[in-house]
Amino acid sequence: MYNFRTDMADERRDIFKKANKLDDNIPGIESFERIENEYIKSNTVKILDKQGEQALGKPIGKYVTFDLKNLKLAGEEEIEDASNIISNEIRAIVSEKINKEGEVLVIGLGNQFVTPDSLGPKVVSEIEITRHLLKYAPECVVEGARSVSAVAPGVLGTTGIETLEIVKGIVDNVKPKLLIVIDSLASKSIHRISSTIQISNTGIVPGAGVGNTRKELSENTLGIPVIAIGVPMVVDLATITDDCLDLFIGKLQDEAKSNDYLNQLKNQDNYEEIRQALIPNEYNMIVTPKEIDELIENMKEIVSRSINYAL
Amino acid sequence: MYNFRTDMADERRDIFKKANKLDDNIPGIESFERIENEYIKSNTVKILDKQGEQALGKPIGKYVTFDLKNLKLAGEEEIEDASNIISNEIRAIVSEKINKEGEVLVIGLGNQFVTPDSLGPKVVSEIEITRHLLKYAPECVVEGARSVSAVAPGVLGTTGIETLEIVKGIVDNVKPKLLIVIDSLASKSIHRISSTIQISNTGIVPGAGVGNTRKELSENTLGIPVIAIGVPMVVDLATITDDCLDLFIGKLQDEAKSNDYLNQLKNQDNYEEIRQALIPNEYNMIVTPKEIDELIENMKEIVSRSINYAL
Amino acid sequence: MYNFRTDMADERRDIFKKANKLDDNIPGIESFERIENEYIKSNTVKILDKQGEQALGKPIGKYVTFDLKNLKLAGEEEIEDASNIISNEIRAIVSEKINKEGEVLVIGLGNQFVTPDSLGPKVVSEIEITRHLLKYAPECVVEGARSVSAVAPGVLGTTGIETLEIVKGIVDNVKPKLLIVIDSLASKSIHRISSTIQISNTGIVPGAGVGNTRKELSENTLGIPVIAIGVPMVVDLATITDDCLDLFIGKLQDEAKSNDYLNQLKNQDNYEEIRQALIPNEYNMIVTPKEIDELIENMKEIVSRSINYAL
Amino acid sequence: MYNFRTDMADERRDIFKKANKLDDNIPGIESFERIENEYIKSNTVKILDKQGEQALGKPIGKYVTFDLKNLKLAGEEEIEDASNIISNEIRAIVSEKINKEGEVLVIGLGNQFVTPDSLGPKVVSEIEITRHLLKYAPECVVEGARSVSAVAPGVLGTTGIETLEIVKGIVDNVKPKLLIVIDSLASKSIHRISSTIQISNTGIVPGAGVGNTRKELSENTLGIPVIAIGVPMVVDLATITDDCLDLFIGKLQDEAKSNDYLNQLKNQDNYEEIRQALIPNEYNMIVTPKEIDELIENMKEIVSRSINYAL
Repeated sequence: MYNFRTDMADERRDIFKKANKLDDNIPGIESFERIENEYIKSNTVKILDKQGEQALGKPIGKYVTFDLKNLKLAGEEEIEDASNIISNEIRAIVSEKINKEGEVLVIGLGNQFVTPDSLGPKVVSEIEITRHLLKYAPECVVEGARSVSAVAPGVLGTTGIETLEIVKGIVDNVKPKLLIVIDSLASKSIHRISSTIQISNTGIVPGAGVGNTRKELSENTLGIPVIAIGVPMVVDLATITDDCLDLFIGKLQDEAKSNDYLNQLKNQDNYEEIRQALIPNEYNMIVTPKEIDELIENMKEIVSRSINYAL
Repeated sequence: MYNFRTDMADERRDIFKKANKLDDNIPGIESFERIENEYIKSNTVKILDKQGEQALGKPIGKYVTFDLKNLKLAGEEEIEDASNIISNEIRAIVSEKINKEGEVLVIGLGNQFVTPDSLGPKVVSEIEITRHLLKYAPECVVEGARSVSAVAPGVLGTTGIETLEIVKGIVDNVKPKLLIVIDSLASKSIHRISSTIQISNTGIVPGAGVGNTRKELSENTLGIPVIAIGVPMVVDLATITDDCLDLFIGKLQDEAKSNDYLNQLKNQDNYEEIRQALIPNEYNMIVTPKEIDELIENMKEIVSRSINYAL
Repeated sequence: MYNFRTDMADERRDIFKKANKLDDNIPGIESFERIENEYIKSNTVKILDKQGEQALGKPIGKYVTFDLKNLKLAGEEEIEDASNIISNEIRAIVSEKINKEGEVLVIGLGNQFVTPDSLGPKVVSEIEITRHLLKYAPECVVEGARSVSAVAPGVLGTTGIETLEIVKGIVDNVKPKLLIVIDSLASKSIHRISSTIQISNTGIVPGAGVGNTRKELSENTLGIPVIAIGVPMVVDLATITDDCLDLFIGKLQDEAKSNDYLNQLKNQDNYEEIRQALIPNEYNMIVTPKEIDELIENMKEIVSRSINYAL
Repeated sequence: MYNFRTDMADERRDIFKKANKLDDNIPGIESFERIENEYIKSNTVKILDKQGEQALGKPIGKYVTFDLKNLKLAGEEEIEDASNIISNEIRAIVSEKINKEGEVLVIGLGNQFVTPDSLGPKVVSEIEITRHLLKYAPECVVEGARSVSAVAPGVLGTTGIETLEIVKGIVDNVKPKLLIVIDSLASKSIHRISSTIQISNTGIVPGAGVGNTRKELSENTLGIPVIAIGVPMVVDLATITDDCLDLFIGKLQDEAKSNDYLNQLKNQDNYEEIRQALIPNEYNMIVTPKEIDELIENMKEIVSRSINYAL
């Protein structure tokens, strides 16, 4: 299978079409776009059969991607509008799977102490949970309220335990009817970082993500429907550089440039051109190791001790 | 002046030499390397005169860079060794400038809520301050102890005030004899992120950093000697991509490749090659907007509201 | 002067009246109450002259206290209502002191890492600052916008520097026309913790607070008007216990109880009675050392090492 | 059963003896003290049979309490010494229950965002886990290393799920041989807050704690041995006030005081006496609602909005 290096279904569709020089739809794939409002556009990709599965490396199901423009500058009103639009989609998928009283468990994947991996735990702490109230203080809950619980199970690197094992254990004991899993994703586009949301009715089935050996969280492994809500948080550095090379080679070929030109290119400072070509104006992109939080703790230790000893 | 896009004196020296095809030392610059121990190497660059200043875009003074190998895996012992070696350098510079009792103020620059910019405030919170004890509880301090205070003044974007204005105000009132300023730097090399420390006796004189319009923190502007301790925390994405292009063009030229080859290159997946060429094995580099913390708060809001509304 | 052990002007007024068996107003003091809405009551105390100053141990000026009911359960609407009511008071005081364009500096006192002392720094990080925009990007600010900056200067225990020295330094350099200072206060009543706001036009003039030797932040020391916004965050344990004894002695006297009764009292478990008498139902009051954050770090270290060594 | 309002076995023993006027040992209870070093004293209470269980309201087993003096001022050396002494006790209990390779799961109870309840999650993040390495990278682990994993399951109020249900789910899936549970406890003495550690081989069996309806975490409910490591973090306000009343009534009785004396007592300020009697000198005790973190977030919102609206 193609190594897509993105978890976004619509990006995979585009990569597949380009790689296979397809103008029409991919067999087994159906997709359409919708303008939700002035700031929000959605993109739905349906994988219909085995052939579609094979093409995009993702299981049969529906993947809806919401692109939010200018999230960084979003005020209270835009946030409220976006929440309403996206909640409609979630509500629709939930009601296809379970009835109005069906218990839901929300799982926030990721490491809360590593910023670009912290969305899941942060969302979990904002979910309005009702399960304990329904059990111990039913008078505090509106009649007919759905039972909702929420857990951030941590990551393999900090617990020593596969996420699937923890989630399976909780599901077996708590017996919810449906799971909503929040996750950080990889995208191929820096424009989409923390400003795009992908909702799917298939759960999380790791395919060609960033060297991810995580186990599947899905109806297959857990026995109940799993809705996945993912937000791209990082782009792999090599992915971006690879894109840049492609663009660059294209330019060389188009212009049938001479060796002199190459020489000149190499000696001149192409920084500003590259900056403008690759990087959206609103953000200031930086390259950082994923382990930056850990590194900075050690460095803090050394620098502060050095000063303390010196003084 | 050349746009170095790095704050490290030794990287600037290398860039200048390469750009000017110099094999020998740069006029006005003296430099040497030292193996400090199995894990630590230091690199001293002395800028001796106006000519040296011009070349590197940094003021006359001494810049010592310590490269720590494998900091990520450092145990208590390596941290202690590194602290001792670096404290010797700091002690030496301090004692050139002030006497044993001279009061020192430590300033931690940066925004504590943005991980790659949080080193300064984090170090400040670990400094053993004595100024208040000497003033209000002298019996708690060893005889002859130096007066040490420490402040994290915040950043322009969160206070609305230039760092220099705040620091100048404090210096005018507290009247220390010397300032030590901790700062996050930009480097050209991802290998150096959070594993290199640069100490200089010149303070912070922003030159060709990453679009930095910050004002100088130095004896010039503050009236007392300023020692700067900086640690590279980020590499600019365009810088890395630019380096990559240079490498790539070099390869094309060396191999006098045909258009067929270019075609092939473009169609094949160069990801793994690029990955191996550019990225150190120990770290998992990611590209992220500098504003990631702010973005993630908005996104958390939207995703959690969407779920709450839907359920 | 009486040791009030509270920073709240209305509590001091009540203590003074009770201690001096006054039924009428205290000479030099004027005060009135107002129902602001269903949830909010305000209490204004004006200290008119030297005699009033002497009585309450606070300087001449106006002190307005807003009591918010059930803040813990407050929804978005109640928070918005409260913000509007309190902003009216702040706006009124500000406009008495400076004109519409007069620059304001907001100072958040306290230690952000100690929860009950963290209000000031937390508020500062939410203030909409404009000073840097007016200076560097005036096109981003509405015409006629006031210049606002905001600093959290830290506390003596972590900087080694008196807050007044830092603030004075900044004021001298930034030259605002008015200061708003946010502070955590002591109250005599556990009902008021984090649900009462006191606004005064006198700045912060430490009198009989909890062993507080802090220096005055006021027009006297800084040369510009200072508005103080304070929120009670803690009650001193001995204060509460003292109140309890008073109540208890009163009960003994009222009932002219015999020694047998005392014996019985001592042997029975009075816990539930005390609990009900002293502690508001909504909150679960705990007694904790102010240094709990520091203590817990050491304890974490010991427990985790113990386990690691044992395993 | 007596309402002890403490989770510490040695405090319960003392309360029971005093309440029942026992001079000798309690039937069914064995106990002894040991001086561990200059700073550390341990106290072992063994509950031997049903009679002992009944007396102390805790199950048959061994409870060892370590009192650390002056933890607040502890340096690296004292922390290391304490860790060694306590790890010996843990190692002894572990080796009674399982063999050298037996897999251990560490569970950190409590809410990481509420300081006095955050010890468990904080310890978990420092545990050296090996389970994932043994599974996926055995070459990184020393030959014969024990499999260790660690989870902070959150609290009922934030997950909606009983801790027992989550832990049971994980235990059923991960199948460790032994559990170590870290927990925050209630004590009757403010001197013990965050400076005492109780280790027991019985797990957590909630009895007469502070209104605790939590379910048992023990071999009974989980099917594997459970070691509990607890640290007192709070004292209930009514508990302290009740103690104070007892002391006070005793004083009245001893001195057969007249009504005049009561009058005088009531009118004088007893604050300093109470302060000295009740409160250890090293710490500055405060009374705060357990929900302080939540309250402060709402208050931050109101104060910052008020200022923003006003300006």
